[in-house]
Amino acid sequence: MEMNNCIVAQSGGPTAAINASLAGVIQGVLDHPEYDHIYGSLNGITGILEERFLDLTETFRQKENLELLKVTPAMYLGSCRYKLPKMEEDIATYETIFRFFEKMEISAFFYIGGNDSMDTVDKLSAYAAKIQSNVRMIGIPKTIDNDLCVTDHTPGFGSAAKYVAASFLEIFHDTVIYTPKSVTIVEIMGRDAGWLTAASVLARNEYCAAPHLIYLPESAFDKEAFLKDVGRLLEQYNNVIVAVSEGICDKDGNYISASTGAVDNFGHSQLSGAGKTLEYLVQERLDVKVRSIELNILQRCGAHMASRTDLEESFCQGRHGVSCAAQGKTGLMVTIQRTGSQPYQVTYGSSPVCEIANQVKSVPKEFINAAGNDVTPEILPYLQPLVQGQPKIAFDQGIPRYLPVPHLL
Amino acid sequence: MEMNNCIVAQSGGPTAAINASLAGVIQGVLDHPEYDHIYGSLNGITGILEERFLDLTETFRQKENLELLKVTPAMYLGSCRYKLPKMEEDIATYETIFRFFEKMEISAFFYIGGNDSMDTVDKLSAYAAKIQSNVRMIGIPKTIDNDLCVTDHTPGFGSAAKYVAASFLEIFHDTVIYTPKSVTIVEIMGRDAGWLTAASVLARNEYCAAPHLIYLPESAFDKEAFLKDVGRLLEQYNNVIVAVSEGICDKDGNYISASTGAVDNFGHSQLSGAGKTLEYLVQERLDVKVRSIELNILQRCGAHMASRTDLEESFCQGRHGVSCAAQGKTGLMVTIQRTGSQPYQVTYGSSPVCEIANQVKSVPKEFINAAGNDVTPEILPYLQPLVQGQPKIAFDQGIPRYLPVPHLL
Repeated sequence: MEMNNCIVAQSGGPTAAINASLAGVIQGVLDHPEYDHIYGSLNGITGILEERFLDLTETFRQKENLELLKVTPAMYLGSCRYKLPKMEEDIATYETIFRFFEKMEISAFFYIGGNDSMDTVDKLSAYAAKIQSNVRMIGIPKTIDNDLCVTDHTPGFGSAAKYVAASFLEIFHDTVIYTPKSVTIVEIMGRDAGWLTAASVLARNEYCAAPHLIYLPESAFDKEAFLKDVGRLLEQYNNVIVAVSEGICDKDGNYISASTGAVDNFGHSQLSGAGKTLEYLVQERLDVKVRSIELNILQRCGAHMASRTDLEESFCQGRHGVSCAAQGKTGLMVTIQRTGSQPYQVTYGSSPVCEIANQVKSVPKEFINAAGNDVTPEILPYLQPLVQGQPKIAFDQGIPRYLPVPHLL
Repeated sequence: MEMNNCIVAQSGGPTAAINASLAGVIQGVLDHPEYDHIYGSLNGITGILEERFLDLTETFRQKENLELLKVTPAMYLGSCRYKLPKMEEDIATYETIFRFFEKMEISAFFYIGGNDSMDTVDKLSAYAAKIQSNVRMIGIPKTIDNDLCVTDHTPGFGSAAKYVAASFLEIFHDTVIYTPKSVTIVEIMGRDAGWLTAASVLARNEYCAAPHLIYLPESAFDKEAFLKDVGRLLEQYNNVIVAVSEGICDKDGNYISASTGAVDNFGHSQLSGAGKTLEYLVQERLDVKVRSIELNILQRCGAHMASRTDLEESFCQGRHGVSCAAQGKTGLMVTIQRTGSQPYQVTYGSSPVCEIANQVKSVPKEFINAAGNDVTPEILPYLQPLVQGQPKIAFDQGIPRYLPVPHLL
């Protein structure tokens, strides 16, 4: 009997919502009677190359597993940092992948990932067209960086934004208790785009003016202007809190950080310590207590502080990807469009992945103030709807309960 | 008309439960008809010296303010790092404090704080005895370090322990997705006692073996043994996660860290980077990807992940302090005694503060394994009850809602 199966994989860095998208893909496949099995490739596309995969069909027919998957951080299927070689450089890799598709009777491949994963979807689509394969290639976006083009915002961003804003409010409460003046520098992820750093503005309320300064990679960073800003604010506030993106650069495009000199597989240079660099600068030049905090990986995996809106939208985007494939579409990335603000409303669509891959959506000028040391109030209606609602986390002996990592049971 | 008032202050480093104790003191005073006003001294004892205080009575007759106070992190009244001089060195400071008590018709002073605050309560009690003052001096403990003697555990510890354990589980989910081998070092607060680092063991479950290694200040740290431990575990696991206390020392008592050389007002030397030091060590000696994470101040102020048990017990200890004062007791610290394990049960008592101040309760030998690189299963029944239950956090626009800092409104 001929089968009609799907396979899904996850790639890149974790988010709190990437498993919600996986749950959406699984639900979508289960909902479409024309599909038989939904397989999960382990560690992204490398699981296909090495034939390491799971059959997810039966596990996730159980509603409670699917619900637990939705709130579990990082990748249930594991991830990879594998860059698919260009077709003209290594056709054999493409042949291996499509042999696997044929053997497993796969008619659609769903890749949940960021910019680099969309590049993989793009390349596989081009190869499929070339060999006239009918396997549908669908990208489901995810990145806490919110830097993908064409789509209003990316799955995973709202949860990270909520974690960042909640952490700033708590850091504010912790910092404000002392009368001696102090400066706290908080470094936030975001190499090229400052969306997540900008989201720290959501911590502000009627008594919390923190973060008092916000520096994004979109504005050239000037050390002297920064010292002046901090000095001026210390006259007004005892405890100044600064939000700074890991990716801030000076006017010549040099990172404000002690570079490690290393580069990853995609040619991105490895950064360390914009926050630490500013801490040392304040220590050296201003006579004030200073501390720096890296929110580190918890901002992307702190699933207990995820945004329910983000989880629900991530789920819907996974499910929409399956609808696209079922309609015979390919070479697409699922998108989300904002169709209303009061109340907030969205619809799901798709765009050719070739228009998205390897491009970066920066924070636009109208969301950054003239001095380049804060965001403008115009960003609030954009950000606020994305962090609404709390996830339903179950607790086991006082600790959040997540879905077990399959290969570790 | 003669009044019978109380005053309360908070001191030391923040916890997620120190305002729950404040709420307990306020509730206790409101419940005792013999008391009129409950004042709050701002920034610890310095608010008394400088006559900066609030009248809390009316604000917290409103139940919703009291409930919001219970879940708000850090100190509603602000903190200080002020060390009360010895009586024989500076009697004038004592006279200032007691003149204030007389003027404000204070009959009881409640000091919510850690070891150093208990030292202040002890000194004030001694002075009160000397001048035959009837002002009651009551210490309400708090410290995430759990290192106070006489009491079963300290308010604030359970919440920090829960935050640490939840974070380890989420870091585990984030780390386990990659196939290339890696080491993650997580540095946890605790200068002299390893209780909070030990609490990372609560992250372990049927699929999560992390943290794979746990190093406490109670065991002498040996760099070579550590490298051997990590190397051995890397044969068994792809991603090894290490919990390390900021206060680990070698066999000669030297901190495993790049010391800044600075000391604080209490003569504690300022540490930086046990985690970073181990990261560099692994990088230098083992051929493996390594990262270090500092949980930093969020482990003490991440109130959204507080333990409800901790908040409730902290509240009860504040209220019990008022009962002690009302019974005419003085020079005491409120304590909590465990009277049952299955089910977990506690009672509240008190101990002379002179038996507690300036002593440290370490993690006992039976809770640490022979190799000094893990805790024993015997610690679990001690720790588990302390992290049970979730706080009722309200959200405002997707961000946790806490009680506004009074002087910033």
